[in-house]
Amino acid sequence: MRKIKTGVFGLNPLLDGGINENSTTVVIGSSGAGKTTFAIQFIRKGLEAGQEGIFVSLDENKEQIIREAVEMGWEEIMDYLKDETLVFIDASGKDFSNFIRKELHKFVSDWKGAGARIAVDPLTPVIWAVESNYEQRELITLLLKLTRKVGTVLCTLEEHGTEGDLSGKETIIPMYLADCVIHLRYKALEGTNSRTLKIIKCRNSWHSEDFHPYRIINGLGLIIQHELTERTIKRESTEKLMKALEKNAERLPENIYKRMQKAFKDLSDSELGGITHTELMRYIIDEYS
Amino acid sequence: MRKIKTGVFGLNPLLDGGINENSTTVVIGSSGAGKTTFAIQFIRKGLEAGQEGIFVSLDENKEQIIREAVEMGWEEIMDYLKDETLVFIDASGKDFSNFIRKELHKFVSDWKGAGARIAVDPLTPVIWAVESNYEQRELITLLLKLTRKVGTVLCTLEEHGTEGDLSGKETIIPMYLADCVIHLRYKALEGTNSRTLKIIKCRNSWHSEDFHPYRIINGLGLIIQHELTERTIKRESTEKLMKALEKNAERLPENIYKRMQKAFKDLSDSELGGITHTELMRYIIDEYS
Amino acid sequence: MRKIKTGVFGLNPLLDGGINENSTTVVIGSSGAGKTTFAIQFIRKGLEAGQEGIFVSLDENKEQIIREAVEMGWEEIMDYLKDETLVFIDASGKDFSNFIRKELHKFVSDWKGAGARIAVDPLTPVIWAVESNYEQRELITLLLKLTRKVGTVLCTLEEHGTEGDLSGKETIIPMYLADCVIHLRYKALEGTNSRTLKIIKCRNSWHSEDFHPYRIINGLGLIIQHELTERTIKRESTEKLMKALEKNAERLPENIYKRMQKAFKDLSDSELGGITHTELMRYIIDEYS
Amino acid sequence: MRKIKTGVFGLNPLLDGGINENSTTVVIGSSGAGKTTFAIQFIRKGLEAGQEGIFVSLDENKEQIIREAVEMGWEEIMDYLKDETLVFIDASGKDFSNFIRKELHKFVSDWKGAGARIAVDPLTPVIWAVESNYEQRELITLLLKLTRKVGTVLCTLEEHGTEGDLSGKETIIPMYLADCVIHLRYKALEGTNSRTLKIIKCRNSWHSEDFHPYRIINGLGLIIQHELTERTIKRESTEKLMKALEKNAERLPENIYKRMQKAFKDLSDSELGGITHTELMRYIIDEYS
Amino acid sequence: MRKIKTGVFGLNPLLDGGINENSTTVVIGSSGAGKTTFAIQFIRKGLEAGQEGIFVSLDENKEQIIREAVEMGWEEIMDYLKDETLVFIDASGKDFSNFIRKELHKFVSDWKGAGARIAVDPLTPVIWAVESNYEQRELITLLLKLTRKVGTVLCTLEEHGTEGDLSGKETIIPMYLADCVIHLRYKALEGTNSRTLKIIKCRNSWHSEDFHPYRIINGLGLIIQHELTERTIKRESTEKLMKALEKNAERLPENIYKRMQKAFKDLSDSELGGITHTELMRYIIDEYS
Amino acid sequence: MRKIKTGVFGLNPLLDGGINENSTTVVIGSSGAGKTTFAIQFIRKGLEAGQEGIFVSLDENKEQIIREAVEMGWEEIMDYLKDETLVFIDASGKDFSNFIRKELHKFVSDWKGAGARIAVDPLTPVIWAVESNYEQRELITLLLKLTRKVGTVLCTLEEHGTEGDLSGKETIIPMYLADCVIHLRYKALEGTNSRTLKIIKCRNSWHSEDFHPYRIINGLGLIIQHELTERTIKRESTEKLMKALEKNAERLPENIYKRMQKAFKDLSDSELGGITHTELMRYIIDEYS
Repeated sequence: MRKIKTGVFGLNPLLDGGINENSTTVVIGSSGAGKTTFAIQFIRKGLEAGQEGIFVSLDENKEQIIREAVEMGWEEIMDYLKDETLVFIDASGKDFSNFIRKELHKFVSDWKGAGARIAVDPLTPVIWAVESNYEQRELITLLLKLTRKVGTVLCTLEEHGTEGDLSGKETIIPMYLADCVIHLRYKALEGTNSRTLKIIKCRNSWHSEDFHPYRIINGLGLIIQHELTERTIKRESTEKLMKALEKNAERLPENIYKRMQKAFKDLSDSELGGITHTELMRYIIDEYS
Repeated sequence: MRKIKTGVFGLNPLLDGGINENSTTVVIGSSGAGKTTFAIQFIRKGLEAGQEGIFVSLDENKEQIIREAVEMGWEEIMDYLKDETLVFIDASGKDFSNFIRKELHKFVSDWKGAGARIAVDPLTPVIWAVESNYEQRELITLLLKLTRKVGTVLCTLEEHGTEGDLSGKETIIPMYLADCVIHLRYKALEGTNSRTLKIIKCRNSWHSEDFHPYRIINGLGLIIQHELTERTIKRESTEKLMKALEKNAERLPENIYKRMQKAFKDLSDSELGGITHTELMRYIIDEYS
Repeated sequence: MRKIKTGVFGLNPLLDGGINENSTTVVIGSSGAGKTTFAIQFIRKGLEAGQEGIFVSLDENKEQIIREAVEMGWEEIMDYLKDETLVFIDASGKDFSNFIRKELHKFVSDWKGAGARIAVDPLTPVIWAVESNYEQRELITLLLKLTRKVGTVLCTLEEHGTEGDLSGKETIIPMYLADCVIHLRYKALEGTNSRTLKIIKCRNSWHSEDFHPYRIINGLGLIIQHELTERTIKRESTEKLMKALEKNAERLPENIYKRMQKAFKDLSDSELGGITHTELMRYIIDEYS
Repeated sequence: MRKIKTGVFGLNPLLDGGINENSTTVVIGSSGAGKTTFAIQFIRKGLEAGQEGIFVSLDENKEQIIREAVEMGWEEIMDYLKDETLVFIDASGKDFSNFIRKELHKFVSDWKGAGARIAVDPLTPVIWAVESNYEQRELITLLLKLTRKVGTVLCTLEEHGTEGDLSGKETIIPMYLADCVIHLRYKALEGTNSRTLKIIKCRNSWHSEDFHPYRIINGLGLIIQHELTERTIKRESTEKLMKALEKNAERLPENIYKRMQKAFKDLSDSELGGITHTELMRYIIDEYS
Repeated sequence: MRKIKTGVFGLNPLLDGGINENSTTVVIGSSGAGKTTFAIQFIRKGLEAGQEGIFVSLDENKEQIIREAVEMGWEEIMDYLKDETLVFIDASGKDFSNFIRKELHKFVSDWKGAGARIAVDPLTPVIWAVESNYEQRELITLLLKLTRKVGTVLCTLEEHGTEGDLSGKETIIPMYLADCVIHLRYKALEGTNSRTLKIIKCRNSWHSEDFHPYRIINGLGLIIQHELTERTIKRESTEKLMKALEKNAERLPENIYKRMQKAFKDLSDSELGGITHTELMRYIIDEYS
Repeated sequence: MRKIKTGVFGLNPLLDGGINENSTTVVIGSSGAGKTTFAIQFIRKGLEAGQEGIFVSLDENKEQIIREAVEMGWEEIMDYLKDETLVFIDASGKDFSNFIRKELHKFVSDWKGAGARIAVDPLTPVIWAVESNYEQRELITLLLKLTRKVGTVLCTLEEHGTEGDLSGKETIIPMYLADCVIHLRYKALEGTNSRTLKIIKCRNSWHSEDFHPYRIINGLGLIIQHELTERTIKRESTEKLMKALEKNAERLPENIYKRMQKAFKDLSDSELGGITHTELMRYIIDEYS
């Protein structure tokens, strides 16, 4: 999978280089967590890297988003809008169900290329546009399917229900459907001021499983703090594993042997966690011989 | 952004000087927290500063608000009403959905200028005027859009559900839609008497992230207590950051270099929190070189 | 505002002398807390003071209320009923929504004077008479508006939901709409027997913010216990404040100076809490000079 | 008020001699708490004392109730049924709303005398017979009104929702409407076996406010355990109170003086709790002089 | 009451010998607790004792139940089915409401004898077949009434809602209606593996009030562990009670005296718990002399 | 019962060799727990063992599943699809209720053999396709019945509601209906990173009752960690049990004797837990002699 940079300072190493191209990401956070700022950083990064940008706004109008972008020190937004590298779709006040099934559908059909960045900010009212869980899932599935055709998708999502408890249907359905889920946890009503970011899942990619404090700074946007320990690449155990695999080559079908060789190549000790090389080898032989 | 004073004693320094002009603020609090008093202070301050005032009341009638204002030592309210610098819109008992879509719409269209102060007290029954989350969001979006055209908007909002837990839909939707959210926490049923104010978010502005005790005093209104430590302006780290930026000037695109210069100008150490200047510089180079 | 005595032993000093005339009070409590007894004491006090009394009963019939009154040692109730100084409106079994909009409306229009006492016991089924929060609020607003025309209103309110958690819509809507809210907390299912009274809010009046144990005694009714410390009138800080005001007279607009003078007149140290006179003076100058 | 014995061993002293005649009592308990057994004991006691008995069953049929009664060692039930001193109304499988409004109404109209005992076992499905809180309240009000005409009423009530939390609408509405509420708390799912009885309220009567363990014994029914300390009659404080009253005779209106005399007559120190005689005297003078 | 053995190893002594004939038992447990296994053991025991068996299955089809029975080492099930001593009613996929009112009704009318064992597995979807609490109660009442005509009934019931909290309406309604309630508590999501059985109630019978660990063993089914202390028969206190009764013979009506004699005959000290013989004697005299 | 291997490394020993053929398994987990990866491993194992595979996808389209499979190092998936050993049913965007009743029904009728592996990923929207608990149960029952005809079924299921609390109806209904339930617990929002697997039930099979940490490794999929202690086979107690059985041979009916002999054959001490051989023997004799 090709990785693209997120535009959020300090986030890329936590995602093994960035988010997967043509994947869908959901950014969840409560009021004041910095969701729209995140979305603007994501779109800006793409434009600066020569990608096209599409901003689908469901609440704010164009003027407000621009104002916020400029306040973030990004005056070039005006130029991008002028030359239509950045397209702004104002869906506020529309029937979202209809908007997705008709307007967005047409927009996507007419679009050329699949390398754009699309931000949907926020996804929440789309879910409310229909009643049942069933239809909500169907509508979100369709929205993600359509936007993914055009490029890499990022949706912001409001955190409803008790803070830090992501079990409401507004959040849980998009979380299941997205490839990558990032939680911006903002404890506004507790005594501390800390904001922390957690990557909940990222399909087909290694990702950090820790909590990372972040700050929102005027003119810069979100900055994620993390110790400079990226993906560890110690390989003591995994080298032993490779040797054990060679020893057992005859006991395994050829295609399995090859698949395992390939899997072990990139494997580091930290990923194995507490699993020893003898244990894992035993499991493989149990399965295939 | 231009700042305007709130009229609440001790609050302005916590918002870097006041609230942003032409923004929308939501003041949340339970019964007895002082929401209406806050709204009266906000309108009074504007009138005293030569701005026009519009008071949209959804519960109380004109007489009661005036009585409360006078009780607060503000007898001039009668004069302002007489010369129509203060306009009172009594929407109590009306179909709010209809009121907003028709009457308020017309009122706003007819109004001249965009420098007034508008108080909506309380916003809560507007949310109840329609059934689904979807329509509620739409109606609040429209209300804020219309009133913002006329000037700076302040809405009071009742705290429903368990005290201090702002996760009910009566509160959460306006919180997401407003630019600034202020929580007046009143622990009526616990042993302590303390009232505390917390600024939950304020778009495009620095704001205090602490809890501030406040009192309601007859004749004065709300008074917010805070240590005399305003926005810190120590700049040790940020000066180093500026130097590091200069050193790396060649490694960065010109527009990025300029944007960063501008962002670092107003940045103080406290805003950086635990992020060191080397860390931040590294993030920037990772993103742009 | 004129104060009238509540009729409940020991309560008046906690409300700075009693409740405000022509205001609306809500008394909340669970089963066994003594709500009806409170209402009878309130009406009796008025009759004894020469005011007329109106008892709107929504559950019990006339006979039961009378029996309870007599049991409380108040045999004169029969005389008051006979000479129609006390009017009993039995709304039990009626369509409350209709009752309020039609019968009560007519009753109020026909009534002469505005010095009566009105008890509504209990308010709860009125809320249930309509479905949505929206209509409930509207109906309660109307009920309070109508009864307030006739005099001073007291409504009892049942505590639904978990004990001591007043967040159910049966309680929260009337709490927001009333001028004065008194909570009779009865911990029937916990090990202790204590009943405690708390004044949650009282618009336009100083009130105690403490918890006060109370007892219900046959023949006497509710008796509130409180230390004999009424509203403190130490004025050290406030005198300094007055002097500081005089010093800064020139820096303030004249009307503000006068308003502050007036506000400081009645102010005692206890009301200032932790706010020092220098702090408050600074806030005032920040706002007005 | 005249007291009648409950038929439950050890319970009468906790209610100052029994329950009030022609009052309504609700007995709440979870599955296995002994509600039906309580009802049978209540009816039996009446029959043994020469009162008539009416058993309104909403679940069980006549045969089962009889079997349970016989199992309790009460074979005479057959004779009472034969000579129609005990009337059994089997409402199981009926439309309860209709049953109450028509059949029960007619039954009550035809009945002679007001000295019977009526058991309704259980009240719960009556509440479910209608949808809204509003109608439920109305129906229960009607049921209690009708049955009270015939004599003293006892209804059993199932405990729904979390154990020991009586906040569900199945329980809370009848609790508010009844004169006397008795809770049989059975902690079936916790480690201990204890069953405890608590009297939550009893209008117009002194009652124990403690928790009392009880047991259900085959052949005897419920037996309530309590220390042999009945209503304390120490009168030190109250005698001082009486003297203080005499001293202040002139400062009080005559009717108030007389009423107080009467109230103090039966008053014991335990009922005054922490209220001193000087405190109470002061309250009275504050109110009336 | 005649007792019949349950077929579950170790359970009978906890029920004073078994369950009462022609009673209704509900066995509640979460997924994996062993409800179906319990039902199979119950039916098998009856067949082995010469009783007929009726298995009403609402989920599984005949083949699956048989497979599970055989897996439990009970191959004779095939013979019982062949000679129709065991009847299998497959109600899966049927309209349960209709099934009960029509088919089951007819089945019961046609059946001869009242000594069979009937298992309904599981009862849960029957409750879901109708909407309101009211109808659910009615339908379960009817189901139990019909099946009880044919013999002794056992229904399994799924535990919905938080584990070990039996307050959902799926569980609470049948619990109230059944004569005997047995809870199989399986803490699947906690760290321990323990399964424990608790008898929540058993009308007209002594029963254990303790928690008993149990295991499910292939080929045996459920085995309940309990200390070998059955119903204690120490009678020190009760003998004293008997003597006290004799002494007071003259103070009591003859029928009461006889009833008490009979009740004391089988009474053991453990059943009296903390109640002393003097206390109990006092209660009896208070009630009857 | 015949066991088949799951394809998940380290899982088979925890299920006494694998899952039962032609049974239904439900794998529950929150977002990021690895449900789809589990399903792919399950299908792959079958294909490698010569079984046919059917993948019913309700969310993702074919392309995405294939991409994920390839990312897992399983490129052969393309060949299986080409020669139609692996069949892909894309039900996304369909009316699931209708899909099951018609399309799936026809598909199953046309299929030859009963040795395939079927994965349904995820089951959740099927439950949402109908409204009431009643219909949901019916639909899931039908789905499992149909798919089981074709072979061994595995359904993934999303964890809704509070994390680790499986009491929502989305999860609880399938849990009751399935033969085997496996919980993949992923504590995304707590500080630890641990993923743990728990087998909640497995009908007709011994299974581990412990919590087992697991990891998801790129190219390998889920790997379950467990101590190398499989099903213990110490048989001290059980041999004593066998001897005791022989001694008591005459006291037991012949068929019971034989059944017990058979049951004791495979029994190990660990399965007996705290039950002693004398205790168990006593229970058996109590039941059958």
